[in-house]
Amino acid sequence: MKLVRFGDAGREKPGLVDANGQIRDASSLVPDITGQTLTSEHLARLRQADPCTLPAVPAGQRLGPCVGNVRNFIAIGLNYADHAAETGAPIPAEPIVFNKAPSCIVGPNDNVIIPRGSQKADWEVELAIVIGERASYVGANEALDFVAGYCVCNDVSEREYQLERGGTWTKGKGCPTFGPLGPWLVTKDEIPDPQNLSMWLDVNGERMQTGSTKTMIFNVAQIVSYVSHFMILEPGDVITTGTPPGVGMGMKPQRYLKAGDIMTLGIEGLGEQRQQVVAFEETPPDTSRAKR
Amino acid sequence: MKLVRFGDAGREKPGLVDANGQIRDASSLVPDITGQTLTSEHLARLRQADPCTLPAVPAGQRLGPCVGNVRNFIAIGLNYADHAAETGAPIPAEPIVFNKAPSCIVGPNDNVIIPRGSQKADWEVELAIVIGERASYVGANEALDFVAGYCVCNDVSEREYQLERGGTWTKGKGCPTFGPLGPWLVTKDEIPDPQNLSMWLDVNGERMQTGSTKTMIFNVAQIVSYVSHFMILEPGDVITTGTPPGVGMGMKPQRYLKAGDIMTLGIEGLGEQRQQVVAFEETPPDTSRAKR
Repeated sequence: MKLVRFGDAGREKPGLVDANGQIRDASSLVPDITGQTLTSEHLARLRQADPCTLPAVPAGQRLGPCVGNVRNFIAIGLNYADHAAETGAPIPAEPIVFNKAPSCIVGPNDNVIIPRGSQKADWEVELAIVIGERASYVGANEALDFVAGYCVCNDVSEREYQLERGGTWTKGKGCPTFGPLGPWLVTKDEIPDPQNLSMWLDVNGERMQTGSTKTMIFNVAQIVSYVSHFMILEPGDVITTGTPPGVGMGMKPQRYLKAGDIMTLGIEGLGEQRQQVVAFEETPPDTSRAKR
Repeated sequence: MKLVRFGDAGREKPGLVDANGQIRDASSLVPDITGQTLTSEHLARLRQADPCTLPAVPAGQRLGPCVGNVRNFIAIGLNYADHAAETGAPIPAEPIVFNKAPSCIVGPNDNVIIPRGSQKADWEVELAIVIGERASYVGANEALDFVAGYCVCNDVSEREYQLERGGTWTKGKGCPTFGPLGPWLVTKDEIPDPQNLSMWLDVNGERMQTGSTKTMIFNVAQIVSYVSHFMILEPGDVITTGTPPGVGMGMKPQRYLKAGDIMTLGIEGLGEQRQQVVAFEETPPDTSRAKR
């Protein structure tokens, strides 16, 4: 199944994509696509439904992040040997684990905002894992049992904040809009081999990243197992698994995002994203107390 | 107000502590103590109630973490000059920011589990900030307006995982039970000066940490402002603000937690915690698929 969330930000409804690519409203079956509805039991209920009996969603609806209310958004660093090389870092002996603030998650085609004063915003196409069952100290041989499915993630990063501001990578990874997820949460039955998916990212139509999950240093099962030895993974948690070569920081000269740029990216079987890059000053005024 | 959550893990009810220290059941007023109920509006509803009219909660009830459904659990590293010195680290020029997995959060008196095979579990008494309003790019002069209140946090840490396993500190900070929060979420009106609170931590009755929030390098307002420039802070997010000297890693010889140890800790005006340390093997078998 391809699960989606559609509608205005913060008010998304659950949907699924039928065999013709039409989005169907699944809110009569589940309240939302979140950790609570990603267990095997709930997924079975969605799977039993005949999509053709569900209301068709009119074209042009915004897509939200394909999983809602994510609490733990984990990322693996330098997980492609050739990407590690382009950043000048040694190949890690163990997975590098960091977090992205859950408040950075947006829909797959939402604008990406360059943080106020930022000079080094960069792109990273990644395969993201969505956890379906609580996982603690699970072995690699059983780890995929705890996975609900996969989606595309753009692990947008601010390199100065990440690497030049002291401490861990956290500062450069969780800025507002730095976590587009989707378009679809593709359940794992449709992705029999997560280690053989081609992936790409363009900026303004120019190919920047080309890769395949084949060249991951630590594969999906190893990552889920490894992380579960350091923290309990819960349904709806997302682990994004690292990026192939071709990020802006690795270019000579380095190249970073600027307002007006268009990022398009995709992974085989998981769909495509498209984001327009906007300057912080262009973002609409927030009516809440924030950003005043 | 002193807000609490009481009852079995995962099924806590909201409560408040009356003038005599009696816990009162507030579930007729709010569904839970979470980000959604920490806005000024909801807190006003709780404040208007006469606690004596609410049902008294019988003694002996377990206390849960004083805020539920935390999504973003942020921590500040090396934020006391003398603690930075004991760990051999330079005084940071900017706050060091890292994350603790939200799944590590437990009640103030729940057992703390030494991770499987771990040798270097350590204690850290800390003042934690609970966010009440969405905060993005807020100045230090207004930052306290976005705070709902404060609580005690034991930022339990595994030093090998944190420092010797590659990458960021994430691996050693979010292990199961590594985030006791509570007993109370004390609203900020009761803590007029968060920079003048004494704090302490004992292991088996022996004083290990003595300090005061006076000696923080970056104060509460500066921290909230700083973090809000790198990520959106949302109601119910928790920021724990660093620990004073006296952690096990800083001792000569180093001293780490072992099964049977009792940690007691507290902060002036925010109450006390007590945790028994248990070995991973002693934890009750989990009926879910995890840990099997």
